Amino acid sequence: MGKQAIGVVGLAVMGRNLALNIESRGHAVSVYNRSREKTDELVAEYPDRKLVPAFTLEEFVESLEKPRRILLMVKAGEGTDATINQLKPLLDKGDILIDGGNTHFTDTIRRNQDLAKSGLHFIGTGVSGGEEGALKGPSIMPGGQRDAYDLVAPILTEIAAKAPDGEPCVAYMGPDGAGHFVKMVHNGIEYGDMQLIAESYAVLKQVVGLSNEELGKVYTEWNQGELDSYLIEITSKIFSKKDEETGKDLVDVILDRAAQKGTGKWTSQNALDLGAPLPLITEAVFARVLSSLKDQRVAASKVLEGPAAKPLGAERDAFVESVRRALYFSKVISYAQGFAQLRAASQEYKWDLDFGTIAKIFRAGCIIRARFLQKITDAYTKDKAIANLLLDPYFRDIAKNYQAALREVVIAAINAGVPVPAFASAIAYFDAYRSERLPANLVQAQRDFFGAHTFERVDKPGSFHANWS
Amino acid sequence: MGKQAIGVVGLAVMGRNLALNIESRGHAVSVYNRSREKTDELVAEYPDRKLVPAFTLEEFVESLEKPRRILLMVKAGEGTDATINQLKPLLDKGDILIDGGNTHFTDTIRRNQDLAKSGLHFIGTGVSGGEEGALKGPSIMPGGQRDAYDLVAPILTEIAAKAPDGEPCVAYMGPDGAGHFVKMVHNGIEYGDMQLIAESYAVLKQVVGLSNEELGKVYTEWNQGELDSYLIEITSKIFSKKDEETGKDLVDVILDRAAQKGTGKWTSQNALDLGAPLPLITEAVFARVLSSLKDQRVAASKVLEGPAAKPLGAERDAFVESVRRALYFSKVISYAQGFAQLRAASQEYKWDLDFGTIAKIFRAGCIIRARFLQKITDAYTKDKAIANLLLDPYFRDIAKNYQAALREVVIAAINAGVPVPAFASAIAYFDAYRSERLPANLVQAQRDFFGAHTFERVDKPGSFHANWS
Repeated sequence: MGKQAIGVVGLAVMGRNLALNIESRGHAVSVYNRSREKTDELVAEYPDRKLVPAFTLEEFVESLEKPRRILLMVKAGEGTDATINQLKPLLDKGDILIDGGNTHFTDTIRRNQDLAKSGLHFIGTGVSGGEEGALKGPSIMPGGQRDAYDLVAPILTEIAAKAPDGEPCVAYMGPDGAGHFVKMVHNGIEYGDMQLIAESYAVLKQVVGLSNEELGKVYTEWNQGELDSYLIEITSKIFSKKDEETGKDLVDVILDRAAQKGTGKWTSQNALDLGAPLPLITEAVFARVLSSLKDQRVAASKVLEGPAAKPLGAERDAFVESVRRALYFSKVISYAQGFAQLRAASQEYKWDLDFGTIAKIFRAGCIIRARFLQKITDAYTKDKAIANLLLDPYFRDIAKNYQAALREVVIAAINAGVPVPAFASAIAYFDAYRSERLPANLVQAQRDFFGAHTFERVDKPGSFHANWS
Repeated sequence: MGKQAIGVVGLAVMGRNLALNIESRGHAVSVYNRSREKTDELVAEYPDRKLVPAFTLEEFVESLEKPRRILLMVKAGEGTDATINQLKPLLDKGDILIDGGNTHFTDTIRRNQDLAKSGLHFIGTGVSGGEEGALKGPSIMPGGQRDAYDLVAPILTEIAAKAPDGEPCVAYMGPDGAGHFVKMVHNGIEYGDMQLIAESYAVLKQVVGLSNEELGKVYTEWNQGELDSYLIEITSKIFSKKDEETGKDLVDVILDRAAQKGTGKWTSQNALDLGAPLPLITEAVFARVLSSLKDQRVAASKVLEGPAAKPLGAERDAFVESVRRALYFSKVISYAQGFAQLRAASQEYKWDLDFGTIAKIFRAGCIIRARFLQKITDAYTKDKAIANLLLDPYFRDIAKNYQAALREVVIAAINAGVPVPAFASAIAYFDAYRSERLPANLVQAQRDFFGAHTFERVDKPGSFHANWS
């Protein structure tokens, strides 16, 4: 009996769909799961597919061509360590473990280094696109040893999503944790995108007074232009979905308490560690947290009054266009922050990330896929070393032409008492980033006054202390 | 020769000043430093003080009454672990180590638990007030074993700052890491206070057009009222300080690149871990980071244009009062977030923190000391379990009466292109916290659409999934 070129450990929905995806490209796939029920189920459900079940790890490892390619799709964290520890004595030098789970990049760095001591390769890869993406073509962000990547690249390239120009959405990101890092920032950006869309919804509903039907039309229209993206597309569809039980619009039946799985939090915490300003995504993370305090909010809504709402009049259509511009410009600002974080990480962890390629592989398969990503690739193609996307001519023009709309929308929301933390953070970041002079001189004066922390001067280098009292 | 009731290890400025403070209350103090120069210097500088030098840790430990009370003022992190490891074999059961350094609370929890296994007590204590506070009376936030605290309480009470009503600014915070945690949040709040003042300065200078002389007068006046605080006081003084070299106003000579030591970052990272919304302080941390990217900002200022400035006319004085109200209300919001974080931590780590007492011991000695803190103590005295300070009648009235001013100032700043990330975040938090309904239902719909993450319903409990496509 022949051996398989690749095997999958862990047959929950993501692992099982990736196995089916690989098989659909003409590869027989060894499959293993800790409890055999999942393996039996999968094989029984797809009797005609070349899925080769194994019921012990020994049997599984034996069934693979060397160097072995093993895709781990197990529960991130202790599950991954436990599986690696069980597999390790069964493997040979040069074998390749690929962790496709939602792993914190520092764990991936640690595992990559540990396994390298035993001559084993370890690739940590982001896989984005959810269940459907895993099955039909996800965006794939692998990091680890370059030569190990080359040995798995053909299969990853086959199963990856294809961008509109046909390019597969997979590329080598960099050493050790680079792939999982890029996936983490992808998810942070996703939090930002979703919060910005939610704020546009709040403004259109509460300030403009649009109905769900009108909202559906607005997002459908927006999806034809610059904002063309998966998240805008599904948003447009959400507004026409009816609740099967009550017949009401489902969006109104859904409780306004947003959950999260923690990758947005990781992105913000890492940005704080790196000293890379990421206020917009962080506001988005906190907005989800605040939404979850539903009981407190309901209680507060009864005692904390806001301003009286002033409905818009004839300027409604113009204002809707302002919201569109505010959303697009805020999105630009959010990605500028996210890519600046990638840049800081690339320097800090010595990864030599290729930002244009990263934007390229986001163009299909993943949740943040959008027409707009081509503009980011274009910007880095023109200037690989650009410090911030806002400095690129295309984004500079967006800033020039759309900032008035963003200011207008934030002001209207503040006047109406509608919270727009991410929009407001976007304009604050833009105005701070373009400020030659910020009031941080006062902060430095205070620090030197109370703690002798010293300050720098505008007119010469060095650090100085004043006798303040 | 008699033995001393307490000893200090580590004679850098904070350790030395605390030793002098303790001695000034009538206690002989054993002093030890890793390199003997610092010990010699201290004793030589104060020949008449009861400072008893030791030049080995053995000699130092021998010189102390039992149970020994040893205040560690060494470099936080590895320095603390190294010192503890050297001391440990020399100590007896019941001896008390007190870490007064700037330690992350998770390290304090670990050390407290490790040492408890050997029958040693470990108190982690926040000490705020800088060099001068250490010498004359800091605010002290100790956490650890309650019975160990009782044995050091008399000395800590003597050396602590005294509030206006004469109460010493020290109290038992709670078990293990509670003291260092409270100090961390204190510092985060300090970042928020400083950023808010910096934004008020930017608005007064750039929107109103006040001179440094006028700014000095405004802050002096503000310091007479609700805003009465150490940070406003030193701010008022900063504007009249001249640079000795150039004769210019020193504040204008100081470079606008704010530094930091990381405790603000810790506070934000912990808030993300706890799921406690802390957007304002986090914006303040990111504002410092962004200020440090001076070269990028200078370059960006040349290509990214903002709106044309429209100077204020006759409404100047009224607007200055609006800025004062915006600052005070934003400060209230910042403390509401910080104390909500303390509340979440108290539950998560099982500390049973007493929030009213915490506000009380901030009233003197520390950097954030302010008249306003009494209002927080009052709020918790009225309702120990209040979920958020904004719900207290006093703060509710501030919200009612000052929110229009905060909205006005944020809007004016946005129109003028002046970045006010913390002010803007404050009003967004306020409006979100008082929202019965947030647009997070759309976020949940999106998550269920692309990832089958399920949602809750408004009309019944449970988790649900829709067939979206």
